[in-house]
Amino acid sequence: MSKYVYGIDVGGTSIKIGLFNFESMDMINDFEVETPKLNHKDSIFETIYQGIISNNEINNILMDDILGVGIDVPCPVKKGYVHTCANLNLNDTDLISSMKKYLPDHVELVAANDATIAAFGENASLKNPYDNAVLITLGTGVGGGVILDGAIVEGATGLGGEVGHIRVYDEEEKVCGCGSKGCLEQICGTAGILNYTKNLLPNDTSILDKDQLTVKAIFDAAKKGDPVALKTVHRVAKYIGIAASILSIINEPDVFIIGGGVSKSGKFLIDLIQMYYKENARFTTGDIPFKLAMTGNQAGIIGSAMLVKSVIVST
Amino acid sequence: MSKYVYGIDVGGTSIKIGLFNFESMDMINDFEVETPKLNHKDSIFETIYQGIISNNEINNILMDDILGVGIDVPCPVKKGYVHTCANLNLNDTDLISSMKKYLPDHVELVAANDATIAAFGENASLKNPYDNAVLITLGTGVGGGVILDGAIVEGATGLGGEVGHIRVYDEEEKVCGCGSKGCLEQICGTAGILNYTKNLLPNDTSILDKDQLTVKAIFDAAKKGDPVALKTVHRVAKYIGIAASILSIINEPDVFIIGGGVSKSGKFLIDLIQMYYKENARFTTGDIPFKLAMTGNQAGIIGSAMLVKSVIVST
Repeated sequence: MSKYVYGIDVGGTSIKIGLFNFESMDMINDFEVETPKLNHKDSIFETIYQGIISNNEINNILMDDILGVGIDVPCPVKKGYVHTCANLNLNDTDLISSMKKYLPDHVELVAANDATIAAFGENASLKNPYDNAVLITLGTGVGGGVILDGAIVEGATGLGGEVGHIRVYDEEEKVCGCGSKGCLEQICGTAGILNYTKNLLPNDTSILDKDQLTVKAIFDAAKKGDPVALKTVHRVAKYIGIAASILSIINEPDVFIIGGGVSKSGKFLIDLIQMYYKENARFTTGDIPFKLAMTGNQAGIIGSAMLVKSVIVST
Repeated sequence: MSKYVYGIDVGGTSIKIGLFNFESMDMINDFEVETPKLNHKDSIFETIYQGIISNNEINNILMDDILGVGIDVPCPVKKGYVHTCANLNLNDTDLISSMKKYLPDHVELVAANDATIAAFGENASLKNPYDNAVLITLGTGVGGGVILDGAIVEGATGLGGEVGHIRVYDEEEKVCGCGSKGCLEQICGTAGILNYTKNLLPNDTSILDKDQLTVKAIFDAAKKGDPVALKTVHRVAKYIGIAASILSIINEPDVFIIGGGVSKSGKFLIDLIQMYYKENARFTTGDIPFKLAMTGNQAGIIGSAMLVKSVIVST
């Protein structure tokens, strides 16, 4: 009889739940439920449990056939423990023991930060996964995760892998959301991209409309050769390349994976990043491949499911 | 009967050999032999073997009582394998199998990069070792190593932990020895420190003598309040602080350990580094302690011995 694992992606707005075949890691089905805003902490875990119960029924699966549940949350996690969570009522919460109350003993549980889980899942989804991988996701913010020797890097308290806050720009004068200055996110996050482009627009010829500026419009215009858009995109690629060269010299991954909304620009962006990376890479690290993230907004459920499978397999 | 391990530190000029009690990790004795310059690769391993044999005799110890031998070398090492070594005839060499030929099967062998081994040894030498530690060594160059979850970080090919080549200075115009620009080593290595100070001297009042300038003289003058020397030392501390803030956001160690010649300036330097680190640290990583390296030029033999002991204990 088939066995299964669940991958759960807990976000500020919704909880995504995916059921996977344990052997093939094919996804059976997935669905979303609203993230409960109730004040009692257990509401999130109850909601996950109810989701699992009803999804088991829909798929005619017994709880005995569920081998593991992987959960990600949008905050630092250390060995399953959340100290503080800005967007959810999870401060001082042991995710594992909180979930254990609802599930039978045989169900293996893992929990980690969402971007770190995504890094694990993106690498594990490659045809030939690597031992060492770094994911950089480009969206409103810049996030990511670090995988070393096949394991996720959490660091002392779960803040490891916050690649968006690598200091890359010495001359930055504005303060980043993190309280420091010169972070990768200040240049390559949505606000940084839009502000830089807006400042260029009055002085240069461009097909871009200042009043309807989006990151997508900038990348599309750059592909068409628009000089302002190209300047912005080269700047984004340059600083991602520099951040990657710093990551290389500290952790030397076998692969960089680029994800998030901006990564939809595809090979155009990857090629530019790789060019700047090679310019800044040290020693022999310049040949590390860059790949596009493939799991999209299912990164959380796929990564969580893959992480709990890897724990089950190794124990 | 007591059991023992050897720690071996292979340098370009000499090979340091230390004998340690396995239980207490007290050093029984240590000695140096010249690094052989012969062209055949085995000469280094033969020299180590002869050193072990004669030291066993001196200490009246049987080979049966040697549980392990740890070896470090001054080049990237991946799982005991050296691809290229700039200073020694060790290109394309499996250090483990090369040494295995000389030693009985029961002897556990480990080999790794010297700075990474030093990081492992410095952390393991602390009263309460941490899971995650980073060593930054300040000397002619700037080196170091990264320990995560108790294990050394080698990366894809053994280049992990090259903290001296973290890019910290965006405006640097000179090319670093590594081929890139703006590396920590360009500011905080001996040449960087001396050049920066020399450029300041013609214009400022200072007790420093331009023709007899040394890094030690600069740090001593800074302690006395010399304005030129203070400017240099603050610059060094600032960029180490920035590099540490970058390391924190990627790997979030529990501790930073500062070693190398410059670290002899002691608390004076550590306090400055910590001040700049706090200015640049992100989120809650600002409270990570900074400690001075304690093992000095025995870092290699102590770290190698501790690493092989850790492997024996865990298997």
